Amino acid sequence: MARPVTLFTGQWADLPLDVLAAKVSEWGFDGLELASGPHFDEVRVLNEPGYAESVRAILDKYNLKVFAVSAHLVGQAICDPIDARHKAILPPEIWGDGEPEGVRKRAAERMKDMARAAAKFGVDRVTGFTGSSIWHLIYSFPPNDFSVVEQGYEDFARRWNPIIDVFDQEGVKFALEVHPTEIAYDFVTTKKALDAIGNRPGFGINFDPSHFAHQFLDSAAFVEEFADRIYHVHVKDSKRKLNGRTSILASHLNFGDPHRGWDFVSPGHGDVDFESLIRSLNRIGYQGPLSIEWEDSGMDREWGARDALAFTRRSDFAPSDVAFDSAFSQR
Amino acid sequence: MARPVTLFTGQWADLPLDVLAAKVSEWGFDGLELASGPHFDEVRVLNEPGYAESVRAILDKYNLKVFAVSAHLVGQAICDPIDARHKAILPPEIWGDGEPEGVRKRAAERMKDMARAAAKFGVDRVTGFTGSSIWHLIYSFPPNDFSVVEQGYEDFARRWNPIIDVFDQEGVKFALEVHPTEIAYDFVTTKKALDAIGNRPGFGINFDPSHFAHQFLDSAAFVEEFADRIYHVHVKDSKRKLNGRTSILASHLNFGDPHRGWDFVSPGHGDVDFESLIRSLNRIGYQGPLSIEWEDSGMDREWGARDALAFTRRSDFAPSDVAFDSAFSQR
Amino acid sequence: MARPVTLFTGQWADLPLDVLAAKVSEWGFDGLELASGPHFDEVRVLNEPGYAESVRAILDKYNLKVFAVSAHLVGQAICDPIDARHKAILPPEIWGDGEPEGVRKRAAERMKDMARAAAKFGVDRVTGFTGSSIWHLIYSFPPNDFSVVEQGYEDFARRWNPIIDVFDQEGVKFALEVHPTEIAYDFVTTKKALDAIGNRPGFGINFDPSHFAHQFLDSAAFVEEFADRIYHVHVKDSKRKLNGRTSILASHLNFGDPHRGWDFVSPGHGDVDFESLIRSLNRIGYQGPLSIEWEDSGMDREWGARDALAFTRRSDFAPSDVAFDSAFSQR
Amino acid sequence: MARPVTLFTGQWADLPLDVLAAKVSEWGFDGLELASGPHFDEVRVLNEPGYAESVRAILDKYNLKVFAVSAHLVGQAICDPIDARHKAILPPEIWGDGEPEGVRKRAAERMKDMARAAAKFGVDRVTGFTGSSIWHLIYSFPPNDFSVVEQGYEDFARRWNPIIDVFDQEGVKFALEVHPTEIAYDFVTTKKALDAIGNRPGFGINFDPSHFAHQFLDSAAFVEEFADRIYHVHVKDSKRKLNGRTSILASHLNFGDPHRGWDFVSPGHGDVDFESLIRSLNRIGYQGPLSIEWEDSGMDREWGARDALAFTRRSDFAPSDVAFDSAFSQR
Amino acid sequence: MARPVTLFTGQWADLPLDVLAAKVSEWGFDGLELASGPHFDEVRVLNEPGYAESVRAILDKYNLKVFAVSAHLVGQAICDPIDARHKAILPPEIWGDGEPEGVRKRAAERMKDMARAAAKFGVDRVTGFTGSSIWHLIYSFPPNDFSVVEQGYEDFARRWNPIIDVFDQEGVKFALEVHPTEIAYDFVTTKKALDAIGNRPGFGINFDPSHFAHQFLDSAAFVEEFADRIYHVHVKDSKRKLNGRTSILASHLNFGDPHRGWDFVSPGHGDVDFESLIRSLNRIGYQGPLSIEWEDSGMDREWGARDALAFTRRSDFAPSDVAFDSAFSQR
Amino acid sequence: MARPVTLFTGQWADLPLDVLAAKVSEWGFDGLELASGPHFDEVRVLNEPGYAESVRAILDKYNLKVFAVSAHLVGQAICDPIDARHKAILPPEIWGDGEPEGVRKRAAERMKDMARAAAKFGVDRVTGFTGSSIWHLIYSFPPNDFSVVEQGYEDFARRWNPIIDVFDQEGVKFALEVHPTEIAYDFVTTKKALDAIGNRPGFGINFDPSHFAHQFLDSAAFVEEFADRIYHVHVKDSKRKLNGRTSILASHLNFGDPHRGWDFVSPGHGDVDFESLIRSLNRIGYQGPLSIEWEDSGMDREWGARDALAFTRRSDFAPSDVAFDSAFSQR
Repeated sequence: MARPVTLFTGQWADLPLDVLAAKVSEWGFDGLELASGPHFDEVRVLNEPGYAESVRAILDKYNLKVFAVSAHLVGQAICDPIDARHKAILPPEIWGDGEPEGVRKRAAERMKDMARAAAKFGVDRVTGFTGSSIWHLIYSFPPNDFSVVEQGYEDFARRWNPIIDVFDQEGVKFALEVHPTEIAYDFVTTKKALDAIGNRPGFGINFDPSHFAHQFLDSAAFVEEFADRIYHVHVKDSKRKLNGRTSILASHLNFGDPHRGWDFVSPGHGDVDFESLIRSLNRIGYQGPLSIEWEDSGMDREWGARDALAFTRRSDFAPSDVAFDSAFSQR
Repeated sequence: MARPVTLFTGQWADLPLDVLAAKVSEWGFDGLELASGPHFDEVRVLNEPGYAESVRAILDKYNLKVFAVSAHLVGQAICDPIDARHKAILPPEIWGDGEPEGVRKRAAERMKDMARAAAKFGVDRVTGFTGSSIWHLIYSFPPNDFSVVEQGYEDFARRWNPIIDVFDQEGVKFALEVHPTEIAYDFVTTKKALDAIGNRPGFGINFDPSHFAHQFLDSAAFVEEFADRIYHVHVKDSKRKLNGRTSILASHLNFGDPHRGWDFVSPGHGDVDFESLIRSLNRIGYQGPLSIEWEDSGMDREWGARDALAFTRRSDFAPSDVAFDSAFSQR
Repeated sequence: MARPVTLFTGQWADLPLDVLAAKVSEWGFDGLELASGPHFDEVRVLNEPGYAESVRAILDKYNLKVFAVSAHLVGQAICDPIDARHKAILPPEIWGDGEPEGVRKRAAERMKDMARAAAKFGVDRVTGFTGSSIWHLIYSFPPNDFSVVEQGYEDFARRWNPIIDVFDQEGVKFALEVHPTEIAYDFVTTKKALDAIGNRPGFGINFDPSHFAHQFLDSAAFVEEFADRIYHVHVKDSKRKLNGRTSILASHLNFGDPHRGWDFVSPGHGDVDFESLIRSLNRIGYQGPLSIEWEDSGMDREWGARDALAFTRRSDFAPSDVAFDSAFSQR
Repeated sequence: MARPVTLFTGQWADLPLDVLAAKVSEWGFDGLELASGPHFDEVRVLNEPGYAESVRAILDKYNLKVFAVSAHLVGQAICDPIDARHKAILPPEIWGDGEPEGVRKRAAERMKDMARAAAKFGVDRVTGFTGSSIWHLIYSFPPNDFSVVEQGYEDFARRWNPIIDVFDQEGVKFALEVHPTEIAYDFVTTKKALDAIGNRPGFGINFDPSHFAHQFLDSAAFVEEFADRIYHVHVKDSKRKLNGRTSILASHLNFGDPHRGWDFVSPGHGDVDFESLIRSLNRIGYQGPLSIEWEDSGMDREWGARDALAFTRRSDFAPSDVAFDSAFSQR
Repeated sequence: MARPVTLFTGQWADLPLDVLAAKVSEWGFDGLELASGPHFDEVRVLNEPGYAESVRAILDKYNLKVFAVSAHLVGQAICDPIDARHKAILPPEIWGDGEPEGVRKRAAERMKDMARAAAKFGVDRVTGFTGSSIWHLIYSFPPNDFSVVEQGYEDFARRWNPIIDVFDQEGVKFALEVHPTEIAYDFVTTKKALDAIGNRPGFGINFDPSHFAHQFLDSAAFVEEFADRIYHVHVKDSKRKLNGRTSILASHLNFGDPHRGWDFVSPGHGDVDFESLIRSLNRIGYQGPLSIEWEDSGMDREWGARDALAFTRRSDFAPSDVAFDSAFSQR
Repeated sequence: MARPVTLFTGQWADLPLDVLAAKVSEWGFDGLELASGPHFDEVRVLNEPGYAESVRAILDKYNLKVFAVSAHLVGQAICDPIDARHKAILPPEIWGDGEPEGVRKRAAERMKDMARAAAKFGVDRVTGFTGSSIWHLIYSFPPNDFSVVEQGYEDFARRWNPIIDVFDQEGVKFALEVHPTEIAYDFVTTKKALDAIGNRPGFGINFDPSHFAHQFLDSAAFVEEFADRIYHVHVKDSKRKLNGRTSILASHLNFGDPHRGWDFVSPGHGDVDFESLIRSLNRIGYQGPLSIEWEDSGMDREWGARDALAFTRRSDFAPSDVAFDSAFSQR
């Protein structure tokens, strides 16, 4: 049986939920991954009677399911050194006076509320980011004191263990989108991050292969390596555009600039090997949704969403339950 | 005529100059690129009678030339956000109380002294770093305000123009080693940085191809693109080691760790296309030294220095001064 | 005109013919390649009145054609050294007491019956295997006496010439599936095998590209090289999965094991270049069926059969009968 | 909005226009690029009352648009050294007595008539060839006098400037199909050719990527390099078939011969990177038609035309008008 | 310090030891890996007073060291199904009447004598083969009963544990050359074989990368994976010659035949990545000899031996004992 | 035994023979391939007593051998359409009034004299070009009448058969350098050209791999395909420089221009696989010289000649005369 296909609403925050739901339903999606913000307000879920029901009503009207809600933006602030960029992505009450440690603490509290709101809404997955106190050390010059790197993982554990305690209480799991700028962005750092929190089951992975292609990482191998922590999956793609003059580090250029060495593209238009990824998801028994996070600076968004859905449907196949040549050898 | 081959002394700071000079001379090098520090103390050059002569005496004893002196470490502090890593690489008097803007200003003043010391020592090239106020924005998440990136280049210009004024006065040129963590690390950022200071001739490039290979950049094309600003050349190599589990971003691992996606290696043992690089250097008429910056965490340093010298000698050839088939067609 | 697409029934032996025929017809196949066994019992065809008609009736009910019947398993026993593996794939009356030469002789007689049964059933192609007395010498250590290899081809000819005599009498052609473990598995061995039997027309090839991809062989070139002996074509695919830790020799692991260096996959999901293959089939004028032998340990069988049929239909195109630029140049 | 897809009629000159229009309309094309000859007779358009209207009537009947007419053959004769091959592709009145300069002059006059006929027919693009007086110097042996090459561009300018004067007067643009044997066939020669005529806007490019793939040229980069001169686009493909025994120079073999090192193939079956090409066309704002010039010696023409149309429709997507992560960052 | 370089004498059995020793010494080798047979007769070592001393005398005369003796041929017979090929490589007293189990048992006893002879001769490494009862099941058709494969590893353990008991008593280690036709030939089978004998230290690996290149295996990764079992290293190379018509399975053709898909070649002339291999040997701290097993059917043997020695000397470098940028960062 | 290494003098025509001989001898070459012109004047050899002896005396003085003399330039004129380029490369008496057929006939007569002069000088190989009447038809547009291509081979045969008659009489062989612009430049055209003259032994090949690399042809395979016609071998290299903006057709740019898609380079600096070429030369038993034709627009000529000689010496090895594993299996 094929997996449900959902759309992540983060890139559609300009559209009211009912408008978006109507489109998405018509295109044939099975559901939505609701991004915290206009489409899913965790504060109102917890405090405003009838709000959650009104969201559900819209979804039901269009026959859309929800398997996960997203808290990427607030999560980013939990471990990060805070700067002006965070102000642009945080609710004012989290930003407050912008004093870094205060911002981080308020963000952490809000993440606990996400777990509570998800549970109340009837969803057991929260996808999101963690931030990182050490990302800016990515290139070791001036030479890193590598004990500081180790402290970054400890800082992460210290900040996130109390959050995951709440997730555990609520029966909800957090799924980190492994991603540059987060505490985990590849094989090595994911292992270190999971080890730092004792591999507790409340903290797992929202796997998104678009962040792996430009690092030259094998998405299918990652899924098998961290099989028991793959809690949610994004369908998103990226493409390397290396011609000797464009840098894999992207030259401080914005997404969509043709002089970058890589960029995000609509699924199936890039370097992600989805065939192998689906086989690995089958092998580990992942049964959750394939959630399209659609982002392509060179393609019309609505044309792309439909193209991505069609691509995902034809790429997703169920595993076999027969062994081969065994049938062949029967008489 | 082949170019002179020098050794950059930065990675040999544990050896006194006379010990190093004896070895290097025996191995057959033509000279040294003296790194600021134990091998070349710019403060003493300017203030201590006889010091410069004593350095020269050692070099003369071993018949070694100097075409450039290096100020990488102090340069790094000029534009960088300052943190504990800088303390480890700066002289105490530059670090002072560690207040960032103070550190940056003292570093800038010291760089002017490097120009004066170089001139006094009889050298017209200072190689080095600039630092960068925007390097930490390398991955745009939280989404960058890209006007801040532009301000980074302006900050660089504001800090470096007065420095280059002194270089101009002294008849010395500064040669930035284009390198991640600096204001320029690839084609796009080099163009922006040079534009930011009005392409003034006092500021050019110390070209080191090892920083290009892991970015998938074409070193030979870079040399031709910025032909009139190639003021010094490093011979250094790096190698991509991408197996699907190692990240090109290097996983916050130190150099030499086998799980990194790339590493520095002895020249000729990596991915740099030196053949094409030499042809480009010939084409632009570069006549300066080839300065081996030797760094390879997996190879004995002295074996490597000799291997690198032999490699450089056999890779370096002079351009042609005849057109072909013209001779062939003569009767 | 596109070629008919059939399904090889060998991997569906667990389903009764009428159940399979109903499915296959609904999926849109044009016919079946019936595998000897439950779907086509050559003994009953020859000896049991009404049996052949009952098979035909099922096929007619579902509007399915048959262009070939398969005798892979019994064929394997004709030249092979016999061991316990053969017992598992042979009918008890062929295995008998398991004495090797007796098994081989009974298998050879049964193959003659296949020719007779095919003719009686109205089909002029039998696909199958030959076995090989020399396959186990595949790696020459202890060093082969290569005259023994030559004797292997002679043994093949001695055993198969009398069989092909019967095929000739019946007006049926045998089509060897060129395949590792058979007397022919690549260009060199196919040429030797065909030469060994004097290139007689009764013995040709059932070309299956899935056995070529993991040997790094060019399927399209093979089809052109042996153009006049391509009597039947399988559509099957395989994929190399070489990551430096998996061997192309497959490590004595069963199909479907992720640590193998290659595996069979559903057509279009692997390394076979079907575009070039179709062009070669067009060039040699092959007009027979494209018979999907479906085998993929990582995919649901029924999803896969439909996917394979759609792939085959869109991959198969007719050749041109006009020369180009000639039209363009007409006035 | 997707671009209109047209069919170039040059390869269908054997079919009367109404027969071709009926087919093309049924297949779903949006229009035709009419090739001078039986489908569009420029002489009759100018001189025969009612002719143009009769052509239009056929097109209207089948709801087909025309964005460009083609004058490839007569254009070829304008700069070429003339030989017997031209006689085969030219109208008898242009060939005349075959004296080269006379042929060239009559061809040039006819091209002016093409501009007039296009304008009268209501079309503002003429696609075509220019010929070249220097193509035969392609390999410099005996060694070229390269001033002769320069004279080739001057000859082109001298012959084409008066032609483009007429195009300018008529408000029609000429679009050279950059192509081997023409004055421009790659980046270098296109720049030289455009420079030779002062980059006047009346002379631009009919971009056809099939001529770039076998030269190893980047079609998407070309489109961006010459963005303001891309006046028309062909969808056509070619495939390299290099196996160590086939030459990229094609061995003096005709198209369709399997021993050539490359050949034309139906769009999507070859080496052209249409994904990148569409992105570049989007980036430069090209809004004109995608005109399929269908040519594949190994594929049935009508099967291919439909396959090419489907391929083009699914490859063509509109650009984005939103910036990404900006939506994502909104609250 | 560079490792000693020895020559394996197996391919030089036609030369008496003193003749070979004279040549090898002149060429500059440091020692020999003596192959059982004319160069090292284990029976005479154990039974004939003065024999061992006479061998030593020759070696001493030419200043050649011995780090290992080889028992490849007799080892092959220990687990193999026995056929005529073994007769050609075994001493008559081991072959005896050729009854397979008798041959295997006598070979096993002789291997124990090798341990005793090596100890007596003063060498603590015996390199060699094991044979395999399951190699002939390499391609699973007729479909393998995979429990039989498991039994193959058990058979190996049962036969080799008593042998290794003797090695342990003698203080000698056995080093299996991981190789097709042996119980271990890649990552998977090496792990299984070592597991089968409980990873006892008496049984390790003679690593020869030439058997890995044609399997597409990563030699450097293997050395790191089985770091504590790398007891001896061969320098030997192989090259893939895949042109679409040659099979990686080698077509039952002898070494040296140009139609094979791979072949052995002199070190440095093939696909082995010796640079990475040396780095891995450095990383695991391997201090033993690099033993050239020279085999190249297309090269003069003596020219090749010298070429291989020069290649090995320049490829072998010692690891670093300093961390980089640490020196650079010192002031 | 290694083959003699000679230098082709065509690119050194500006140096008098004794000057060149002195240099070449000092560099260590074994001989010269004398180019017709200042170094070898065939007219004087035949007509001027003492001339040949004086040339010989110079060669003997420097201990240089001659295995072949070259007649590339005059050969080019035999089949070519004649234009101003030929005037620049022909002796005035051959050019005469420049009337094409007269030029061709005089060139043919001169080629007969080359055979006579070679014989008199004691050399049995003349290397050279043939020209081609059809080279300019290389890209079939306007569409070729391919019967004209066939006529080109016939024209070649008609003109060259009488020449080869003289070669046969003189006991000298002509060796065509297979090369673009000649009647043969790849596999297909070489076969056609040899067929056209009935594969007569007097006409063979001067194999130069530099003309094959940019056509993507396999030099080693060519040598084996035409084994019995390889009469002389050039060591010369070329390099593809394809970056998406440079054309493999070279853009009408002169050698040495960095915007060409390929260029000639010093041996070992380009794409020629000399390892495989030497193995093929060994396999076919070629015993003649390796003649370095040195041409590299980006390298100093004298540095290059020495580099090329060293490269050739270390690349050239003799074949084996033993079969492997046979020695290994001896007891």
